[in-house]
Amino acid sequence: MDKQRQDELKKQAAQKAADLVENGIILGVGTGSTVAFFIDALGKRKEEGLSLKHIVTTSNRSKKQLEGLGFKVDELSEVDHVDLTVDGADRVNSDLDGIKGGGGALTLEKNVAANSTKNIWIVDGSKVHDVLQGFPLPVEVLPISCEQNFKRFEEKGLKPVWRMDGEKRYVTHYGNYIIDLGLDKIEKPYDLADYLDHTVGVVEHGLFLNICDQVIIAQDDGTIVEQVKEH
Amino acid sequence: MDKQRQDELKKQAAQKAADLVENGIILGVGTGSTVAFFIDALGKRKEEGLSLKHIVTTSNRSKKQLEGLGFKVDELSEVDHVDLTVDGADRVNSDLDGIKGGGGALTLEKNVAANSTKNIWIVDGSKVHDVLQGFPLPVEVLPISCEQNFKRFEEKGLKPVWRMDGEKRYVTHYGNYIIDLGLDKIEKPYDLADYLDHTVGVVEHGLFLNICDQVIIAQDDGTIVEQVKEH
Repeated sequence: MDKQRQDELKKQAAQKAADLVENGIILGVGTGSTVAFFIDALGKRKEEGLSLKHIVTTSNRSKKQLEGLGFKVDELSEVDHVDLTVDGADRVNSDLDGIKGGGGALTLEKNVAANSTKNIWIVDGSKVHDVLQGFPLPVEVLPISCEQNFKRFEEKGLKPVWRMDGEKRYVTHYGNYIIDLGLDKIEKPYDLADYLDHTVGVVEHGLFLNICDQVIIAQDDGTIVEQVKEH
Repeated sequence: MDKQRQDELKKQAAQKAADLVENGIILGVGTGSTVAFFIDALGKRKEEGLSLKHIVTTSNRSKKQLEGLGFKVDELSEVDHVDLTVDGADRVNSDLDGIKGGGGALTLEKNVAANSTKNIWIVDGSKVHDVLQGFPLPVEVLPISCEQNFKRFEEKGLKPVWRMDGEKRYVTHYGNYIIDLGLDKIEKPYDLADYLDHTVGVVEHGLFLNICDQVIIAQDDGTIVEQVKEH
Protein backbone atom coordinates (compact mmCIF):
# COMPACT_ATOMS: atom_id res chain seq x y z
CA MET A 1 0.00 0.00 0.00
CA ASP A 2 1.44 3.44 -0.87
CA LYS A 3 1.86 6.11 1.79
CA GLN A 4 -0.99 8.25 0.47
CA ARG A 5 -3.47 5.37 0.73
CA GLN A 6 -2.09 4.43 4.16
CA ASP A 7 -2.48 8.00 5.41
CA GLU A 8 -6.02 8.06 4.05
CA LEU A 9 -6.82 4.96 6.10
CA LYS A 10 -5.17 6.38 9.23
CA LYS A 11 -7.28 9.51 8.78
CA GLN A 12 -10.45 7.41 8.66
CA ALA A 13 -9.48 5.56 11.84
CA ALA A 14 -8.59 8.86 13.51
CA GLN A 15 -11.94 10.35 12.46
CA LYS A 16 -13.78 7.42 14.04
CA ALA A 17 -11.97 8.08 17.32
CA ALA A 18 -12.66 11.82 17.13
CA ASP A 19 -16.36 11.08 16.66
CA LEU A 20 -16.33 9.26 20.02
CA VAL A 21 -15.16 12.35 21.95
CA GLU A 22 -18.09 13.75 23.90
CA ASN A 23 -18.64 17.38 24.77
CA GLY A 24 -17.39 18.60 28.15
CA ILE A 25 -15.07 15.70 28.98
CA ILE A 26 -11.48 15.61 30.20
CA LEU A 27 -9.51 14.20 27.24
CA GLY A 28 -6.10 12.56 27.14
CA VAL A 29 -4.20 12.72 23.83
CA GLY A 30 -1.27 10.46 22.98
CA THR A 31 1.36 10.66 20.27
CA GLY A 32 2.13 9.20 16.85
CA SER A 33 1.28 9.57 13.19
CA THR A 34 -2.32 8.34 13.54
CA VAL A 35 -2.84 10.43 16.67
CA ALA A 36 -1.68 13.48 14.66
CA PHE A 37 -4.62 12.87 12.30
CA PHE A 38 -6.86 12.46 15.35
CA ILE A 39 -5.79 15.91 16.59
CA ASP A 40 -6.59 17.39 13.16
CA ALA A 41 -10.05 15.82 13.32
CA LEU A 42 -10.47 17.17 16.84
CA GLY A 43 -9.66 20.66 15.52
CA LYS A 44 -12.48 20.34 13.01
CA ARG A 45 -14.88 19.23 15.73
CA LYS A 46 -13.82 22.28 17.73
CA GLU A 47 -14.82 24.53 14.80
CA GLU A 48 -18.17 22.79 14.88
CA GLY A 49 -18.61 23.59 18.56
CA LEU A 50 -16.88 20.82 20.55
CA SER A 51 -15.84 22.12 23.95
CA LEU A 52 -13.65 20.09 26.32
CA LYS A 53 -13.24 20.61 30.07
CA HIS A 54 -9.52 19.82 30.01
CA ILE A 55 -6.97 18.27 27.65
CA VAL A 56 -3.81 16.53 28.80
CA THR A 57 -1.22 15.02 26.51
CA THR A 58 1.78 12.67 26.58
CA SER A 59 4.18 14.63 24.36
CA ASN A 60 5.33 18.10 23.44
CA ARG A 61 4.62 17.34 19.78
CA SER A 62 0.94 16.68 20.44
CA LYS A 63 0.80 19.62 22.85
CA LYS A 64 2.08 22.00 20.17
CA GLN A 65 -0.29 20.63 17.55
CA LEU A 66 -3.24 21.00 19.95
CA GLU A 67 -2.23 24.54 20.94
CA GLY A 68 -1.86 25.43 17.27
CA LEU A 69 -5.53 24.52 16.90
CA GLY A 70 -6.49 26.76 19.82
CA PHE A 71 -6.81 24.09 22.54
CA LYS A 72 -5.49 24.87 26.03
CA VAL A 73 -3.42 21.94 27.30
CA ASP A 74 -3.12 21.12 31.02
CA GLU A 75 -0.79 18.87 33.02
CA LEU A 76 -2.02 15.49 34.28
CA SER A 77 -1.28 16.72 37.83
CA GLU A 78 -3.82 19.53 37.33
CA VAL A 79 -6.81 17.28 36.61
CA ASP A 80 -8.72 15.00 38.92
CA HIS A 81 -8.97 12.19 36.36
CA VAL A 82 -9.19 11.70 32.59
CA ASP A 83 -12.46 10.55 31.01
CA LEU A 84 -11.06 9.27 27.72
CA THR A 85 -7.56 8.92 26.32
CA VAL A 86 -6.87 8.32 22.63
CA ASP A 87 -3.39 7.03 21.86
CA GLY A 88 -1.48 4.74 19.53
CA ALA A 89 0.32 1.51 20.47
CA ASP A 90 3.42 -0.28 19.23
CA ARG A 91 1.78 -3.69 19.47
CA VAL A 92 -1.66 -4.93 20.46
CA ASN A 93 -2.84 -8.52 20.85
CA SER A 94 -6.26 -10.15 20.61
CA ASP A 95 -7.00 -9.40 24.30
CA LEU A 96 -6.32 -5.69 23.61
CA ASP A 97 -3.19 -5.87 25.75
CA GLY A 98 -0.26 -4.04 24.23
CA ILE A 99 3.29 -2.76 24.16
CA LYS A 100 3.93 0.97 24.26
CA GLY A 101 6.96 3.15 24.81
CA GLY A 102 8.83 2.88 21.52
CA GLY A 103 9.14 6.66 21.68
CA GLY A 104 10.54 6.53 25.22
CA ALA A 105 7.60 8.19 27.02
CA LEU A 106 6.15 4.99 28.52
CA THR A 107 6.02 6.30 32.08
CA LEU A 108 3.98 9.38 31.25
CA GLU A 109 1.85 7.38 28.79
CA LYS A 110 1.07 4.74 31.40
CA ASN A 111 0.28 7.30 34.07
CA VAL A 112 -2.17 9.05 31.76
CA ALA A 113 -3.69 5.73 30.64
CA ALA A 114 -3.98 4.30 34.16
CA ASN A 115 -5.86 7.40 35.28
CA SER A 116 -8.26 7.36 32.32
CA THR A 117 -11.73 5.91 32.66
CA LYS A 118 -11.62 4.80 29.03
CA ASN A 119 -8.71 4.19 26.64
CA ILE A 120 -8.99 3.97 22.87
CA TRP A 121 -6.00 3.00 20.72
CA ILE A 122 -5.81 3.79 17.02
CA VAL A 123 -3.31 1.66 15.13
CA ASP A 124 -2.55 0.33 11.68
CA GLY A 125 -2.77 -3.37 10.94
CA SER A 126 0.99 -3.99 11.27
CA LYS A 127 0.70 -3.45 15.03
CA VAL A 128 -1.89 -6.18 15.58
CA HIS A 129 -0.79 -9.76 16.37
CA ASP A 130 -2.48 -12.61 18.23
CA VAL A 131 0.56 -12.79 20.51
CA LEU A 132 2.70 -9.73 21.37
CA GLN A 133 5.79 -9.94 19.17
CA GLY A 134 8.15 -8.16 16.83
CA PHE A 135 8.69 -5.16 19.05
CA PRO A 136 11.20 -4.77 21.92
CA LEU A 137 9.66 -4.19 25.34
CA PRO A 138 10.97 -0.96 26.91
CA VAL A 139 11.73 -0.94 30.64
CA GLU A 140 12.57 2.34 32.37
CA VAL A 141 15.16 1.85 35.13
CA LEU A 142 16.73 4.07 37.76
CA PRO A 143 20.42 4.74 36.98
CA ILE A 144 21.53 3.71 40.50
CA SER A 145 21.01 -0.01 40.00
CA CYS A 146 20.57 -0.23 36.23
CA GLU A 147 23.71 -2.34 35.75
CA GLN A 148 22.37 -4.95 38.17
CA ASN A 149 18.95 -4.83 36.49
CA PHE A 150 20.56 -5.33 33.07
CA LYS A 151 22.59 -8.28 34.35
CA ARG A 152 19.55 -9.95 35.92
CA PHE A 153 17.52 -9.51 32.76
CA GLU A 154 20.36 -11.12 30.84
CA GLU A 155 20.48 -14.06 33.26
CA LYS A 156 16.73 -14.50 32.91
CA GLY A 157 17.04 -14.68 29.11
CA LEU A 158 15.14 -11.43 28.55
CA LYS A 159 17.67 -10.22 25.93
CA PRO A 160 18.27 -6.73 27.29
CA VAL A 161 19.69 -3.97 25.09
CA TRP A 162 20.42 -0.41 26.22
CA ARG A 163 18.35 2.22 24.42
CA MET A 164 20.94 4.57 22.91
CA ASP A 165 20.95 8.19 21.84
CA GLY A 166 23.94 8.27 19.51
CA GLU A 167 26.97 7.17 21.52
CA LYS A 168 25.32 7.71 24.88
CA ARG A 169 22.51 6.00 26.72
CA TYR A 170 19.10 7.48 26.04
CA VAL A 171 17.88 9.47 29.07
CA THR A 172 14.15 9.70 29.77
CA HIS A 173 12.24 12.80 30.83
CA TYR A 174 12.68 11.60 34.43
CA GLY A 175 16.45 11.18 34.16
CA ASN A 176 16.34 7.38 33.88
CA TYR A 177 17.58 4.84 31.31
CA ILE A 178 15.63 2.49 29.09
CA ILE A 179 16.49 -1.19 28.67
CA ASP A 180 14.74 -2.74 25.67
CA LEU A 181 13.96 -6.44 26.06
CA GLY A 182 14.39 -8.02 22.63
CA LEU A 183 11.99 -10.90 23.15
CA ASP A 184 10.77 -12.77 20.09
CA LYS A 185 7.32 -13.31 21.55
CA ILE A 186 5.65 -12.47 24.85
CA GLU A 187 3.39 -15.44 25.42
CA LYS A 188 2.54 -14.59 29.04
CA PRO A 189 2.48 -10.81 29.34
CA TYR A 190 0.83 -10.83 32.79
CA ASP A 191 3.60 -12.99 34.28
CA LEU A 192 6.29 -10.79 32.78
CA ALA A 193 4.55 -7.60 33.96
CA ASP A 194 4.28 -9.08 37.45
CA TYR A 195 8.01 -9.84 37.50
CA LEU A 196 8.89 -6.33 36.27
CA ASP A 197 6.47 -4.62 38.70
CA HIS A 198 8.22 -6.39 41.59
CA THR A 199 11.74 -5.67 40.33
CA VAL A 200 13.43 -3.00 42.46
CA GLY A 201 14.90 -0.27 40.24
CA VAL A 202 12.23 -0.56 37.54
CA VAL A 203 10.26 2.69 37.33
CA GLU A 204 7.83 1.51 34.64
CA HIS A 205 7.60 -0.91 31.73
CA GLY A 206 5.87 -0.89 28.38
CA LEU A 207 3.36 -3.68 28.96
CA PHE A 208 -0.04 -1.97 28.98
CA LEU A 209 -2.34 -4.72 30.26
CA ASN A 210 -6.04 -4.47 30.91
CA ILE A 211 -5.86 -0.78 30.02
CA CYS A 212 -7.18 -0.50 26.47
CA ASP A 213 -10.98 -0.62 26.15
CA GLN A 214 -11.32 -0.24 22.42
CA VAL A 215 -9.02 -0.43 19.44
CA ILE A 216 -9.62 1.09 16.00
CA ILE A 217 -7.53 -0.62 13.34
CA ALA A 218 -6.72 0.75 9.89
CA GLN A 219 -6.19 -2.60 8.17
CA ASP A 220 -3.95 -3.28 5.20
CA ASP A 221 -6.94 -4.44 3.17
CA GLY A 222 -8.34 -0.93 3.32
CA THR A 223 -11.00 -1.52 5.94
CA ILE A 224 -11.38 0.02 9.39
CA VAL A 225 -12.10 -2.49 12.13
CA GLU A 226 -13.14 -1.78 15.71
CA GLN A 227 -12.64 -4.14 18.61
CA VAL A 228 -14.06 -3.63 22.10
CA LYS A 229 -12.57 -5.20 25.21
CA GLU A 230 -14.73 -7.79 26.90
CA HIS A 231 -14.61 -6.91 30.59
CA MET B 1 16.95 3.90 80.11
CA ASP B 2 19.15 7.01 79.90
CA LYS B 3 20.79 8.01 76.62
CA GLN B 4 24.27 7.03 77.73
CA ARG B 5 23.14 3.47 78.55
CA GLN B 6 21.16 3.29 75.30
CA ASP B 7 24.17 4.44 73.26
CA GLU B 8 26.30 1.83 75.04
CA LEU B 9 23.84 -0.87 73.94
CA LYS B 10 23.71 0.43 70.37
CA LYS B 11 27.50 0.32 70.31
CA GLN B 12 27.47 -3.32 71.38
CA ALA B 13 24.96 -4.21 68.64
CA ALA B 14 27.02 -2.26 66.10
CA GLN B 15 30.18 -4.07 67.20
CA LYS B 16 28.49 -7.44 66.68
CA ALA B 17 27.61 -6.40 63.11
CA ALA B 18 31.13 -5.10 62.45
CA ASP B 19 32.55 -8.46 63.60
CA LEU B 20 30.54 -10.13 60.83
CA VAL B 21 32.22 -8.12 58.04
CA GLU B 22 34.67 -10.37 56.22
CA ASN B 23 37.86 -9.25 54.55
CA GLY B 24 37.73 -8.45 50.83
CA ILE B 25 33.94 -8.14 50.45
CA ILE B 26 31.79 -5.48 48.83
CA LEU B 27 30.00 -3.82 51.74
CA GLY B 28 26.82 -1.71 51.79
CA VAL B 29 26.40 0.74 54.65
CA GLY B 30 23.07 2.30 55.62
CA THR B 31 22.21 5.25 57.82
CA GLY B 32 21.07 6.01 61.35
CA SER B 33 22.34 6.41 64.90
CA THR B 34 23.20 2.70 65.36
CA VAL B 35 24.79 2.53 61.90
CA ALA B 36 26.98 5.49 62.90
CA PHE B 37 28.38 3.33 65.72
CA PHE B 38 28.82 0.50 63.20
CA ILE B 39 30.93 2.78 61.01
CA ASP B 40 33.08 3.70 64.02
CA ALA B 41 33.61 0.00 64.74
CA LEU B 42 34.45 -0.56 61.08
CA GLY B 43 37.09 2.16 61.35
CA LYS B 44 38.72 0.26 64.22
CA ARG B 45 38.67 -2.96 62.22
CA LYS B 46 40.37 -1.06 59.39
CA GLU B 47 43.19 -0.06 61.76
CA GLU B 48 43.52 -3.76 62.60
CA GLY B 49 43.92 -4.61 58.92
CA LEU B 50 40.38 -5.04 57.49
CA SER B 51 40.43 -4.38 53.75
CA LEU B 52 37.23 -4.12 51.69
CA LYS B 53 36.90 -4.46 47.93
CA HIS B 54 34.27 -1.72 47.68
CA ILE B 55 31.97 0.21 49.98
CA VAL B 56 28.67 1.73 48.88
CA THR B 57 26.33 3.70 51.10
CA THR B 58 22.77 5.03 51.22
CA SER B 59 23.44 8.54 52.53
CA ASN B 60 25.84 11.44 52.37
CA ARG B 61 26.08 11.39 56.15
CA SER B 62 27.43 7.83 56.21
CA LYS B 63 29.60 8.57 53.19
CA LYS B 64 31.27 11.49 54.97
CA GLN B 65 31.79 9.46 58.16
CA LEU B 66 33.35 6.61 56.16
CA GLU B 67 35.58 8.93 54.17
CA GLY B 68 36.66 10.59 57.44
CA LEU B 69 37.93 7.16 58.51
CA GLY B 70 39.88 6.74 55.28
CA PHE B 71 37.46 4.50 53.38
CA LYS B 72 36.88 5.13 49.66
CA VAL B 73 33.15 5.10 48.90
CA ASP B 74 31.79 4.02 45.50
CA GLU B 75 28.40 4.36 43.85
CA LEU B 76 26.07 1.36 43.65
CA SER B 77 26.20 1.70 39.86
CA GLU B 78 29.96 1.09 39.96
CA VAL B 79 29.77 -2.33 41.62
CA ASP B 80 28.56 -5.63 40.25
CA HIS B 81 26.72 -6.59 43.43
CA VAL B 82 26.96 -6.09 47.20
CA ASP B 83 27.99 -8.99 49.46
CA LEU B 84 26.64 -7.64 52.74
CA THR B 85 24.66 -4.54 53.68
CA VAL B 86 24.33 -3.35 57.28
CA ASP B 87 21.50 -0.89 57.86
CA GLY B 88 18.90 0.13 60.41
CA ALA B 89 15.12 -0.18 60.06
CA ASP B 90 12.15 1.85 61.27
CA ARG B 91 10.16 -1.28 62.13
CA VAL B 92 10.82 -5.00 61.95
CA ASN B 93 8.41 -7.85 62.67
CA SER B 94 8.90 -11.45 63.77
CA ASP B 95 9.41 -12.61 60.13
CA LEU B 96 12.23 -10.03 59.77
CA ASP B 97 10.10 -8.03 57.33
CA GLY B 98 10.28 -4.32 57.93
CA ILE B 99 9.45 -0.72 57.20
CA LYS B 100 12.21 1.63 56.09
CA GLY B 101 12.31 5.09 54.58
CA GLY B 102 11.54 7.33 57.54
CA GLY B 103 14.50 9.44 56.40
CA GLY B 104 13.15 9.66 52.84
CA ALA B 105 15.86 7.58 51.12
CA LEU B 106 13.77 4.41 50.70
CA THR B 107 14.43 4.07 46.97
CA LEU B 108 18.21 4.10 47.27
CA GLU B 109 18.02 1.94 50.42
CA LYS B 110 15.86 -0.65 48.68
CA ASN B 111 18.06 -0.71 45.59
CA VAL B 112 21.15 -1.33 47.71
CA ALA B 113 19.35 -3.96 49.82
CA ALA B 114 17.81 -5.77 46.84
CA ASN B 115 21.24 -6.10 45.25
CA SER B 116 22.90 -7.38 48.42
CA THR B 117 23.50 -11.08 48.94
CA LYS B 118 23.02 -10.64 52.68
CA ASN B 119 21.32 -7.91 54.72
CA ILE B 120 21.80 -7.32 58.43
CA TRP B 121 19.71 -4.77 60.32
CA ILE B 122 20.79 -3.32 63.63
CA VAL B 123 17.95 -1.79 65.64
CA ASP B 124 16.92 -0.98 69.18
CA GLY B 125 14.07 -2.80 70.85
CA SER B 126 11.49 -0.05 70.17
CA LYS B 127 11.57 -0.95 66.47
CA VAL B 128 10.58 -4.59 66.98
CA HIS B 129 6.91 -5.64 66.96
CA ASP B 130 5.16 -8.90 66.16
CA VAL B 131 3.08 -7.02 63.57
CA LEU B 132 4.37 -3.95 61.68
CA GLN B 133 2.84 -0.94 63.43
CA GLY B 134 3.38 2.49 64.91
CA PHE B 135 5.29 3.87 61.94
CA PRO B 136 3.86 5.44 58.75
CA LEU B 137 4.69 3.59 55.55
CA PRO B 138 6.46 5.90 53.05
CA VAL B 139 5.53 5.62 49.37
CA GLU B 140 7.59 7.52 46.77
CA VAL B 141 5.40 8.74 43.91
CA LEU B 142 6.04 10.50 40.60
CA PRO B 143 4.73 14.09 40.67
CA ILE B 144 2.79 13.63 37.39
CA SER B 145 0.02 11.49 38.87
CA CYS B 146 0.61 11.94 42.59
CA GLU B 147 -2.75 13.64 43.14
CA GLN B 148 -4.55 10.64 41.67
CA ASN B 149 -2.38 8.25 43.72
CA PHE B 150 -3.20 10.20 46.90
CA LYS B 151 -6.92 10.12 46.13
CA ARG B 152 -6.89 6.38 45.46
CA PHE B 153 -4.98 5.66 48.67
CA GLU B 154 -7.60 7.72 50.51
CA GLU B 155 -10.45 5.77 48.90
CA LYS B 156 -8.75 2.51 49.87
CA GLY B 157 -8.54 3.62 53.51
CA LEU B 158 -4.74 3.80 53.52
CA LYS B 159 -4.72 7.15 55.39
CA PRO B 160 -2.32 9.03 53.11
CA VAL B 161 -0.49 12.13 54.34
CA TRP B 162 1.93 14.21 52.26
CA ARG B 163 5.50 14.23 53.62
CA MET B 164 6.27 17.92 54.11
CA ASP B 165 9.42 20.00 54.23
CA GLY B 166 8.22 23.09 56.05
CA GLU B 167 5.39 24.58 53.99
CA LYS B 168 6.26 22.64 50.85
CA ARG B 169 6.08 19.00 49.92
CA TYR B 170 9.25 17.06 50.66
CA VAL B 171 11.13 16.28 47.42
CA THR B 172 13.23 13.09 47.21
CA HIS B 173 16.68 12.78 45.69
CA TYR B 174 14.93 11.66 42.47
CA GLY B 175 12.61 14.66 42.32
CA ASN B 176 9.55 12.76 43.55
CA TYR B 177 7.13 13.19 46.48
CA ILE B 178 6.51 10.94 49.46
CA ILE B 179 3.05 9.95 50.65
CA ASP B 180 3.11 8.47 54.16
CA LEU B 181 0.41 5.89 54.82
CA GLY B 182 -0.67 6.33 58.44
CA LEU B 183 -1.87 2.78 58.98
CA ASP B 184 -2.34 1.60 62.57
CA LYS B 185 -1.13 -1.91 61.77
CA ILE B 186 0.00 -3.70 58.62
CA GLU B 187 -1.35 -7.20 59.13
CA LYS B 188 -0.69 -8.39 55.57
CA PRO B 189 2.47 -6.64 54.35
CA TYR B 190 2.83 -8.89 51.27
CA ASP B 191 -0.66 -8.02 50.01
CA LEU B 192 -0.05 -4.30 50.53
CA ALA B 193 3.37 -4.49 48.82
CA ASP B 194 1.80 -6.30 45.89
CA TYR B 195 -0.84 -3.58 45.51
CA LEU B 196 1.78 -0.81 45.70
CA ASP B 197 4.18 -2.59 43.27
CA HIS B 198 1.36 -2.72 40.72
CA THR B 199 0.24 0.88 41.24
CA VAL B 200 1.27 3.08 38.31
CA GLY B 201 3.05 6.20 39.55
CA VAL B 202 4.62 4.50 42.58
CA VAL B 203 8.42 4.51 42.25
CA GLU B 204 9.10 2.57 45.44
CA HIS B 205 7.61 1.93 48.88
CA GLY B 206 9.03 1.33 52.33
CA LEU B 207 7.98 -2.30 52.81
CA PHE B 208 11.22 -4.30 52.82
CA LEU B 209 9.98 -7.88 52.61
CA ASN B 210 12.06 -11.01 52.44
CA ILE B 211 15.17 -8.82 52.33
CA CYS B 212 16.61 -8.91 55.86
CA ASP B 213 18.58 -12.06 56.71
CA GLN B 214 19.61 -11.24 60.24
CA VAL B 215 18.63 -8.66 62.82
CA ILE B 216 20.71 -7.56 65.81
CA ILE B 217 18.55 -5.99 68.50
CA ALA B 218 19.75 -3.79 71.34
CA GLN B 219 16.93 -4.58 73.77
CA ASP B 220 15.58 -2.31 76.49
CA ASP B 221 16.50 -4.87 79.15
CA GLY B 222 20.17 -4.33 78.30
CA THR B 223 20.71 -7.51 76.29
CA ILE B 224 21.71 -7.92 72.66
CA VAL B 225 19.60 -10.45 70.76
CA GLU B 226 20.25 -11.83 67.29
CA GLN B 227 17.60 -13.31 65.06
CA VAL B 228 18.29 -15.09 61.78
CA LYS B 229 15.74 -15.39 58.98
CA GLU B 230 14.50 -18.90 58.33
CA HIS B 231 14.69 -19.30 54.57
